[in-house]
Amino acid sequence: MSTDFVPADPAWEERVRASFARQGAMAQLGATIEQLAPGVCAVVTAYRPELSQQHGFFHAGVTSAIADSAGGYAAMTLFPPDSDVLTVEFKINLIAPAHGEVLRARGEVVRNGRTLTICRVDVEVVRAGASTVCAVMQQTLMRVAVR
Amino acid sequence: MSTDFVPADPAWEERVRASFARQGAMAQLGATIEQLAPGVCAVVTAYRPELSQQHGFFHAGVTSAIADSAGGYAAMTLFPPDSDVLTVEFKINLIAPAHGEVLRARGEVVRNGRTLTICRVDVEVVRAGASTVCAVMQQTLMRVAVR
Amino acid sequence: MSTDFVPADPAWEERVRASFARQGAMAQLGATIEQLAPGVCAVVTAYRPELSQQHGFFHAGVTSAIADSAGGYAAMTLFPPDSDVLTVEFKINLIAPAHGEVLRARGEVVRNGRTLTICRVDVEVVRAGASTVCAVMQQTLMRVAVR
Amino acid sequence: MSTDFVPADPAWEERVRASFARQGAMAQLGATIEQLAPGVCAVVTAYRPELSQQHGFFHAGVTSAIADSAGGYAAMTLFPPDSDVLTVEFKINLIAPAHGEVLRARGEVVRNGRTLTICRVDVEVVRAGASTVCAVMQQTLMRVAVR
Repeated sequence: MSTDFVPADPAWEERVRASFARQGAMAQLGATIEQLAPGVCAVVTAYRPELSQQHGFFHAGVTSAIADSAGGYAAMTLFPPDSDVLTVEFKINLIAPAHGEVLRARGEVVRNGRTLTICRVDVEVVRAGASTVCAVMQQTLMRVAVR
Repeated sequence: MSTDFVPADPAWEERVRASFARQGAMAQLGATIEQLAPGVCAVVTAYRPELSQQHGFFHAGVTSAIADSAGGYAAMTLFPPDSDVLTVEFKINLIAPAHGEVLRARGEVVRNGRTLTICRVDVEVVRAGASTVCAVMQQTLMRVAVR
Repeated sequence: MSTDFVPADPAWEERVRASFARQGAMAQLGATIEQLAPGVCAVVTAYRPELSQQHGFFHAGVTSAIADSAGGYAAMTLFPPDSDVLTVEFKINLIAPAHGEVLRARGEVVRNGRTLTICRVDVEVVRAGASTVCAVMQQTLMRVAVR
Repeated sequence: MSTDFVPADPAWEERVRASFARQGAMAQLGATIEQLAPGVCAVVTAYRPELSQQHGFFHAGVTSAIADSAGGYAAMTLFPPDSDVLTVEFKINLIAPAHGEVLRARGEVVRNGRTLTICRVDVEVVRAGASTVCAVMQQTLMRVAVR
């Protein structure tokens, strides 16, 4: 879907990367932006025991944190200058154990409205080279003027 | 709603606390169980820059991680022995900036089914002694036999 | 939660009732407003075979339709004149069979923001005089200027 | 995604169509199955004033009812004999006004588990021959033994 999107700000990429870099929580998770294009953002992180739930898989909170970031920054790629992104809400289904070495969330804009942007995010876990979709998210974001 | 719930396992409290203690992600967030009763669990964490989003508030991923844990362990208080809890899905609305020193998620069981349990979770942020509800979650959990 | 809400429009009640009356779908379902107060709206309908799913209970689509209306009009009670309500999104858990004679959805505003309003809605089914909560919803609404 | 799905019941198509035919609510909406394949179901309905909200567009309850059916029957195509489908929960974003002559919901299975099946549903409205996606849904369904 993302091929039609034209960013409203020529400096969209620097703006998105600078905002991501200010998030202590993404640094704490070891999360980085792997892909960035108009209407698309992929965020990845590598497994460490600090990111685990009780069975040693990635915690649902980690999965949803990187999924939320992937969708949020996918939206932000399309925003005009002097605007920022807020997550209004999201819904995530955890459809397979997040058992693996790498977790990758890929967000795509479905609808870029004036006030609200809707994204879908797929999260896959990579284990011994094989990928499994472990979570799917649907998310609502709001564009706000920078204070 | 929780007053009617009777745990199916006399050792429910030890079981819930032991499972929580195995979660590296909760330790990483500095999160602890503040309240535990049949059908109820409250989880709290204190602010650190490592938990922030781009404006220095608690990150939505942190908010949803402790909310997911609070609801999940509220459900687990009612489970029989030799069972574990999985999050099927959740939906969270972030309704106010999570700006404060302490974040507290309180989960309550709405419906305790044989296979699925439904919870609602409220998250409040405490700033200079004043509490604000900053997020509300609705969540579906599944009871699974321990492997 | 609704006790603190003060409507922004003295004519809120007429405005809400007039909008409800324009909804062909609510008439089709035989749905009526049972309760209306600032930040609160309850909508009821009686069972007919036309509202059924494959087992003869109320269809999930009927349940979600009246829940969506209850939450939407709960939000609208607080809106200023010359504004209308749009449903941005909702999430509903169907937690018990909607088996009974009457279906009642009660929506309450959780957060009344400038642009977005968040509601929770409980739906109960009444069978031989006994009520059961059969669905719970969490919903995001947007205030829009009347065209 | 649906190309990999193999129905567990050779008589899946008759079973799905028979269940759909028993839903009074679908008949009431004038809804019919337009497409049926393993893991896929599309449901359509034509506009009538009885299906409207306050501006004369399709009501959100109608949109969610046919989306819920499309996803539910997409799931049911993969179920073994003597099983039925229940909607556990769904979340729907209404992303554009449902203004048009025809409403079409297309559900696809994302994950077909033993107990739970996850679907995504897109709803489009057709107006003067042009299609617009007006809603996106993410849904959790449960397989239950027929009573």
